Amino acid sequence: MNDVLSKVQLKGYEDRFPSELSGGQQQRVALARMIAAKSDIFLMDEPLSNLDAMLRIDMRSELKHLHNELGATTVYVTHDQIEALTLSDRIVVMHNGKIKQYDTPEAIYKKPLNLFVAKFVGSPPINLMKGRIVKENNSLFFKNKAIKLDLKGVVAPETESSDIIAAVRAEDIEVSPSSSENQSEAFNVYSVLPAGSETIITLQRGETELAVKLSGFSSTKMNDSISIKIRPEKISFFNPKTEELIQ
Amino acid sequence: MNDVLSKVQLKGYEDRFPSELSGGQQQRVALARMIAAKSDIFLMDEPLSNLDAMLRIDMRSELKHLHNELGATTVYVTHDQIEALTLSDRIVVMHNGKIKQYDTPEAIYKKPLNLFVAKFVGSPPINLMKGRIVKENNSLFFKNKAIKLDLKGVVAPETESSDIIAAVRAEDIEVSPSSSENQSEAFNVYSVLPAGSETIITLQRGETELAVKLSGFSSTKMNDSISIKIRPEKISFFNPKTEELIQ
Repeated sequence: MNDVLSKVQLKGYEDRFPSELSGGQQQRVALARMIAAKSDIFLMDEPLSNLDAMLRIDMRSELKHLHNELGATTVYVTHDQIEALTLSDRIVVMHNGKIKQYDTPEAIYKKPLNLFVAKFVGSPPINLMKGRIVKENNSLFFKNKAIKLDLKGVVAPETESSDIIAAVRAEDIEVSPSSSENQSEAFNVYSVLPAGSETIITLQRGETELAVKLSGFSSTKMNDSISIKIRPEKISFFNPKTEELIQ
Repeated sequence: MNDVLSKVQLKGYEDRFPSELSGGQQQRVALARMIAAKSDIFLMDEPLSNLDAMLRIDMRSELKHLHNELGATTVYVTHDQIEALTLSDRIVVMHNGKIKQYDTPEAIYKKPLNLFVAKFVGSPPINLMKGRIVKENNSLFFKNKAIKLDLKGVVAPETESSDIIAAVRAEDIEVSPSSSENQSEAFNVYSVLPAGSETIITLQRGETELAVKLSGFSSTKMNDSISIKIRPEKISFFNPKTEELIQ
């Protein structure tokens, strides 16, 4: 028993009544009961949902470590996409009782197979841009009223001229102050949101809005004029009708 | 009126009853009422606390933009440290009715004046290490059982030999796989928590635990052996008795 209690860091609490334990400690008692039962499979249904934000982050680390130590297959149900990314070897994203994607956290994040998964995972939400693929001088571009991106052959030519949705993560957009030459393609800074280790800036041009994640505090100011660059391999394209990834 | 409604992006909703609006829209009606009153000062008391996570992020950007446009001084009360960092020009951190620090978001984050502010702001929480300042071969080091950091003269010598708490943010610790030479100072990887644009790894050595923030997905595995490096100017030192910053 002592061994199990130390695994969940509750040594010295043996003689307490449930009411003398904090919410987090009670949750850890539930984990200890589970470990003591020596099951081969664990089912956890939103085990962290009752904990405050700080403790939840702490318990993620404990659960991950524990899972690695015990080696028991664990089915973990959560509505928290960050929890799913941090804790799983494989994620099943479900919507209306249907499986939308079954993959590793990295694939779910970097190559979502449909718009539902793309929008559900990631914070800030993935940037979506409506537009068309057009050919100019033998090169393919993604284009709408606000933006023109050279795709350097990344998208198959058969999608040419059709409506398409381009998706790109906030950390995959590079920004620089716009110069007089590229002023015509510049975005306007709508808001600047520093959050400590990172800053989210939102950019606007016509009806296109983009969230960009920068590291640390940024010197960008509201209403600055900004040029953006997106490497074509960072863009996922979706069919606007089927909402499926165009491979 | 139309002008005010478009500012809060509620044009076309003029004829709806309150019950026909979503929680976020109702919140924006409250903002519109405030704007229409043309006050010089706004007081907002946790205005985003009833919104779901997605909308809250969205509304932060709207509030920041609106504040910039209106130019009216706003006193904004929140328990959410990220909201405080993202929205303010100046933050007053209060605890038990006393002001713990009054500063810009960047100073609050990078130079907290006491342990309360250091621990309250930032996610994951700032890393705290107990130890001593010792002099060896005319150089000052921060030292405890797990760690020895060359301070390169960053801390004033008068703190030498006294107990001290060193604080460092998760993104300010550099990691590399440990080699055979520095094995004796290596940390063990306790957990690896990928969250999309970043990965938090927690390291353990003796009783010292450190959270490290890496960008993107990391190839680090549990139980890997890791060397750390911290640039001395990234460390804040606190007096363990008064809990105040040692300048």
